[in-house]
Amino acid sequence: MKVSIIGATGYAGAELLAILQRHPQVKITHITSESHTGKKISELYPHLYKICDMTLESLNDIEKIGADSDFVFIALPHGHAMDVGKKLENLPVRIIDLGADYRFDDVTVYEKWYKVEHTHKTAQRVYGLAEIYRDKIRNAKIIGNAGCFTTASILALAPVVKNNLVDVDTIIVDAKSGVSGAGRSPKLGNHFPELYDNFKAYNVAHHRHTPEIEQALSDLGGESVTINFTPHLVPMSRGILATCYAKLKADVDEKILDEVFQNFYGNEKFIRLLGRNAYPETKFVRGSNYCDIAWHFDERTRRVIILSAIDNLVKGAAGQAVQNFNIAAGFDESTALDVVPFYP
Amino acid sequence: MKVSIIGATGYAGAELLAILQRHPQVKITHITSESHTGKKISELYPHLYKICDMTLESLNDIEKIGADSDFVFIALPHGHAMDVGKKLENLPVRIIDLGADYRFDDVTVYEKWYKVEHTHKTAQRVYGLAEIYRDKIRNAKIIGNAGCFTTASILALAPVVKNNLVDVDTIIVDAKSGVSGAGRSPKLGNHFPELYDNFKAYNVAHHRHTPEIEQALSDLGGESVTINFTPHLVPMSRGILATCYAKLKADVDEKILDEVFQNFYGNEKFIRLLGRNAYPETKFVRGSNYCDIAWHFDERTRRVIILSAIDNLVKGAAGQAVQNFNIAAGFDESTALDVVPFYP
Amino acid sequence: MKVSIIGATGYAGAELLAILQRHPQVKITHITSESHTGKKISELYPHLYKICDMTLESLNDIEKIGADSDFVFIALPHGHAMDVGKKLENLPVRIIDLGADYRFDDVTVYEKWYKVEHTHKTAQRVYGLAEIYRDKIRNAKIIGNAGCFTTASILALAPVVKNNLVDVDTIIVDAKSGVSGAGRSPKLGNHFPELYDNFKAYNVAHHRHTPEIEQALSDLGGESVTINFTPHLVPMSRGILATCYAKLKADVDEKILDEVFQNFYGNEKFIRLLGRNAYPETKFVRGSNYCDIAWHFDERTRRVIILSAIDNLVKGAAGQAVQNFNIAAGFDESTALDVVPFYP
Amino acid sequence: MKVSIIGATGYAGAELLAILQRHPQVKITHITSESHTGKKISELYPHLYKICDMTLESLNDIEKIGADSDFVFIALPHGHAMDVGKKLENLPVRIIDLGADYRFDDVTVYEKWYKVEHTHKTAQRVYGLAEIYRDKIRNAKIIGNAGCFTTASILALAPVVKNNLVDVDTIIVDAKSGVSGAGRSPKLGNHFPELYDNFKAYNVAHHRHTPEIEQALSDLGGESVTINFTPHLVPMSRGILATCYAKLKADVDEKILDEVFQNFYGNEKFIRLLGRNAYPETKFVRGSNYCDIAWHFDERTRRVIILSAIDNLVKGAAGQAVQNFNIAAGFDESTALDVVPFYP
Repeated sequence: MKVSIIGATGYAGAELLAILQRHPQVKITHITSESHTGKKISELYPHLYKICDMTLESLNDIEKIGADSDFVFIALPHGHAMDVGKKLENLPVRIIDLGADYRFDDVTVYEKWYKVEHTHKTAQRVYGLAEIYRDKIRNAKIIGNAGCFTTASILALAPVVKNNLVDVDTIIVDAKSGVSGAGRSPKLGNHFPELYDNFKAYNVAHHRHTPEIEQALSDLGGESVTINFTPHLVPMSRGILATCYAKLKADVDEKILDEVFQNFYGNEKFIRLLGRNAYPETKFVRGSNYCDIAWHFDERTRRVIILSAIDNLVKGAAGQAVQNFNIAAGFDESTALDVVPFYP
Repeated sequence: MKVSIIGATGYAGAELLAILQRHPQVKITHITSESHTGKKISELYPHLYKICDMTLESLNDIEKIGADSDFVFIALPHGHAMDVGKKLENLPVRIIDLGADYRFDDVTVYEKWYKVEHTHKTAQRVYGLAEIYRDKIRNAKIIGNAGCFTTASILALAPVVKNNLVDVDTIIVDAKSGVSGAGRSPKLGNHFPELYDNFKAYNVAHHRHTPEIEQALSDLGGESVTINFTPHLVPMSRGILATCYAKLKADVDEKILDEVFQNFYGNEKFIRLLGRNAYPETKFVRGSNYCDIAWHFDERTRRVIILSAIDNLVKGAAGQAVQNFNIAAGFDESTALDVVPFYP
Repeated sequence: MKVSIIGATGYAGAELLAILQRHPQVKITHITSESHTGKKISELYPHLYKICDMTLESLNDIEKIGADSDFVFIALPHGHAMDVGKKLENLPVRIIDLGADYRFDDVTVYEKWYKVEHTHKTAQRVYGLAEIYRDKIRNAKIIGNAGCFTTASILALAPVVKNNLVDVDTIIVDAKSGVSGAGRSPKLGNHFPELYDNFKAYNVAHHRHTPEIEQALSDLGGESVTINFTPHLVPMSRGILATCYAKLKADVDEKILDEVFQNFYGNEKFIRLLGRNAYPETKFVRGSNYCDIAWHFDERTRRVIILSAIDNLVKGAAGQAVQNFNIAAGFDESTALDVVPFYP
Repeated sequence: MKVSIIGATGYAGAELLAILQRHPQVKITHITSESHTGKKISELYPHLYKICDMTLESLNDIEKIGADSDFVFIALPHGHAMDVGKKLENLPVRIIDLGADYRFDDVTVYEKWYKVEHTHKTAQRVYGLAEIYRDKIRNAKIIGNAGCFTTASILALAPVVKNNLVDVDTIIVDAKSGVSGAGRSPKLGNHFPELYDNFKAYNVAHHRHTPEIEQALSDLGGESVTINFTPHLVPMSRGILATCYAKLKADVDEKILDEVFQNFYGNEKFIRLLGRNAYPETKFVRGSNYCDIAWHFDERTRRVIILSAIDNLVKGAAGQAVQNFNIAAGFDESTALDVVPFYP
């Protein structure tokens, strides 16, 4: 199966390359970068030297690339994937977009939060969070891969929202991410001496992953959900931990909680339920496609606190994209993804 | 003024030493350690070499030490300060305890959360959070210095709770601390390779700073407050960020919020109000006694999100102890504490 | 092929498990730990949960384990492997020891530097550094896997020493390692707050990897080599960078240097020559079995400065052990080892 | 005494501000920045909020600033200070330059290594390393403050070079620095995810601190010294450790070494001799003006290995500048500099 990566030089693109090059059914045919056209990817990422020394092309000839690919992965900043998607609309190629352009059922939500006009409103797209939308992903033309914070948050809350265990208007997600989530472009906020031995919140009440979480939870709960989502920056490279709070409905006890999580995720390959009162750590999933989940019942406040951990570049981006690809292409869902987390 | 430090070899004790040795009105007369009696403090902390090479004594002779001190700072694990306090009860020496033994108005709360019997129930003690209880501190015999997470949480929430702006049963504090807060004893959980590039929660729904925050907020709000408090461990050395959530009462708007914070903390030397929509960073207060505070108003959920940052070893321990000492001894409150935060 | 791991709970043991479980020709039959006998390895290393939940056995029955294994990997502290080796002497099982017990041709050198009597002096052993001793490894009964600093140092210096380009009595190796090299046992020196934002040297002039480097360089150079080796601790988890200095002989120029490196390592799978004036970074090889090498010619001092980078737990321990295993077992040398370095 | 800081927005400038604002004899009259003219320094460095909210001026009016200052500190990139120095030549103001422009006795050396024409060749300048050149500093018009790597290297080697204990053509300095040494301008090489858990060398054989070290050692030793100097980047914020190697002359033993260090630095306030076989750690001097030094004698190779640690922004830049200022202005040399190192 021939695949191409549009925008291969960001961290998600490079991670995609690392995963896809070990995929036994995949041949990478094109990788692109506008700012580094003509260079080898290993000049930009020396860790790939002698492993992947492919040359970066421009996406000017995107139709030609599309014609030479069964699947195209897009890892561009938001606002650019919809142009690519439109141009490839009438080709048989299928698309997995790691950005936000194809994540929303209602494009007006996208336009409001991203402040861009959507130029491909009629796209046949689905939301790419495999554990929740696997069936739709199977035959989709365009898959809008779920975001990083979003994946951790939705997977943590889906069981209790779907089973109507919590008051949805009490949901708060307090999330923490490593710095690779902010991309590879140097800026003062990500300059090493500024972040080292430092911790901060950002985009309080306004982060763009908020409506994405709300879309999925509303869909799962069957009612409109509005949440508080607060991202924080951790002085580390990889990983997201989401700490999720919600008020439990009157009759919910610990036993019901345990059952609901077990039933909801019983056979999922990439969900590891650590159980009640356990503590996921981001390093336990680092480099892997796992989402580790645990839950705590606070009898004093009758809140459930759900903790979930993912690697933001794997289950939060490239790994999830390949998981979606495996589903869409009919491969075993864990192909190229069954790696041991990188520890310590 | 002669002061002694009981338990000088933990991080809080060492920080206390660093602050007190630059205090122009202080002469340190005794420092103690049971496990390192007879050694120089600079053998355990080589950064103190040629600055403070005092010899560690045992606290076996605590009455003698007490008699030779105007103030005694105690930096022992909880459960040990009350023994010292009792032995010094009838001496003119005053006590500032950095641990939990003297923090609670109701010793049964202490006994329940700390699972120890309190042996000094009749102590004349006050709670040592200067910005809230300054007047009581002035003449106290024993000051139970506020905890680290507690300080950040109470200072963030006090203005809105005191002014009745929020539903107190909706309060959630999601807090994050650097590793020095866990002390200097090596254990697997704090072993460098385990924590590096890692993030996790701990003691969910059961952390002992919970009742301490509740005590102060109940006192401020005039009604019983029960909260969720969740601590997390950040792969850094110093600093605490508290992210506090609460539902605003119907009529509260942004203007009221701004006014309440300004009025509450207007003249406080160690509170820096960064304002609405700002972002405290732990590194902006590192090494200093400041507590930086900002607040965010979410119109979608009508919650206020309050962010506060402190250095856990300074405003969260040793700095606050010296601030309390300055108040109790009648010195300018910022003596020895007006340092520039250590950046970058 | 059945393999067992004796001492599976250290970092090297866990890394070995991670590599071997993806080896298509391997079945892991036994893993041992004396301090955790009866526990699942995933209780100690939760990142292995649902991936490897094998139970740890005692090595009391080492003969039985040996009889049930084609290869035994030993990852015990030095001084213990020789007992195991002796007990397995007459079984057909082959041994790869990750410790120091079988690294030395001359056991008196071992005894002098390790201050232990060697109890298995007659062992049929070879030194396990594949790029240099591949032929001997092929049929060895016992392979003494090269040490971490040693591997980086020897691979850097071998070409110039073998080709007689430098004055061997001017060789200095200044090496820097991440903290995982110090093992998983918590101690003050590896306590997170002590090491964070800190850098130091240790064991100057006395580190036990010194005689191991000298043994290989003496063998390669055909004359007795005595060097300075200085290890340092870097506040990071993984990786070694060795900075090697030596005075060039009179007639050696840059062209000769380039040729010698190219010829020496031309076809080695795991050696990546970055070239003259290049800069290996530990992160470029992190998680992989690569050793990246570059060299600099200083015309002012006529010294060559050779830089080499490895992952201390992979090429410096577990990866190299599996590479040696592949050679000894007749598999392709890179089986289970052709992974993309973990970046960023 | 009125002082100004030209170029206050780099890390060295900000550190200077932090030190000078606590100097009892100093009033800061002007701070400048070309890229941020008109902003408050605390907008760029929020840790200074409410401590120093001075407004940044342009240096267009440098003569006016000079006329309003007793001392001017310059913290500009090299090549810019000499213009400032020239313009202030005929004013009574004295100058302390933290950059390289005034460090060299022979401007052709400067021009060769910095590839800039020197435009102020006739300047009355001295080299600003207080422990070595204190007497000259006292009355200098312009002080060329020693560089960071340079300071650590020269202070380590001065005793043995001055006393003729080593073969100077065998000197190698292998140095390691935290990232703040690279300045505050974001670039890929200092982007957090690139450096975290990473270690590398840079500028091998070509770093500009090389000729500066050679100048001082040649002066001390009375013969021309050419060395190897290799800098490395440590994934931490602050600190330099220099590991220095040299071959001892035939008759030098451990006792002579000990005596020479003690005699050379006996009464120096900011030099802490940790002794033979000790290990300086960068964190033991962090935030302070100390240089900690230890030495090791290797009988096998007859080399001395000298270790020195400084804080690159304090003794390596701003602290040293204030030390020089104190000498030049006739104040106690440690005024504003007697702080406890920031630990942990």
